Amino acid sequence: MTHGVPVLRIDLGSDRPAYEQIVGGLRALLVAGEFASGDRLPPVRQLAIDLGVHHNTVAESYRVLEQEGWLDLSRGRGAIVRRRPERKASPAAKQEFSRRLEELAAKAIADGLPRASVAEQLKALAGRLTET
Amino acid sequence: MTHGVPVLRIDLGSDRPAYEQIVGGLRALLVAGEFASGDRLPPVRQLAIDLGVHHNTVAESYRVLEQEGWLDLSRGRGAIVRRRPERKASPAAKQEFSRRLEELAAKAIADGLPRASVAEQLKALAGRLTET
Repeated sequence: MTHGVPVLRIDLGSDRPAYEQIVGGLRALLVAGEFASGDRLPPVRQLAIDLGVHHNTVAESYRVLEQEGWLDLSRGRGAIVRRRPERKASPAAKQEFSRRLEELAAKAIADGLPRASVAEQLKALAGRLTET
Repeated sequence: MTHGVPVLRIDLGSDRPAYEQIVGGLRALLVAGEFASGDRLPPVRQLAIDLGVHHNTVAESYRVLEQEGWLDLSRGRGAIVRRRPERKASPAAKQEFSRRLEELAAKAIADGLPRASVAEQLKALAGRLTET
């Protein structure tokens, strides 16, 4: 967002808590490499206004990302993107991903998305992940 | 489960509420066609004991699945699997799936799963969805 490029959107009408959407959305941008180390995320109050949420919601989201090693909030200069050491996945993390992926696809199919279209999106994402 | 085949497991150590895991896991089994219309799910109290959760948690999960059209709880005969009419996905459902899929993959990568292994799982699931 410091480049004016990455866009974070949340759906206030969704069942998912705004906090979870902010963490999930920012984490996806961070993993996609949309921020460089040293970049500054928008100030809490500004992002809160942009998204239409309470500033505590944004502050809590930043804290979670700090705990995960993505942000440095310590220097009173705002939320600074860190170079984050790669982790080694636990077997539990792999199994958790597998299970949630199944459940997410099942939910989409239950909601009426054709299986072929779900499969298409899975393949498209797989392609994006391996091309970079 | 009436056939002794489908297995529902939940992770009591996970951050995810047990209720969400039960709904998600049962929905995945239902979408996968693991139950026939007319099958009876285990009684609430039995499943609660098997999973190590409060029976209210199972009862609430069954109610959510009833609201989604998967179960009939009305006849006092327990939880009966229904033939559920196919839905037409809203554009919002499609977008929601897309967003959550991205976030889920990003979370797995952040947790240390190699991109290639995430991509592999996505492709494997896409394959299973289109072969049936």
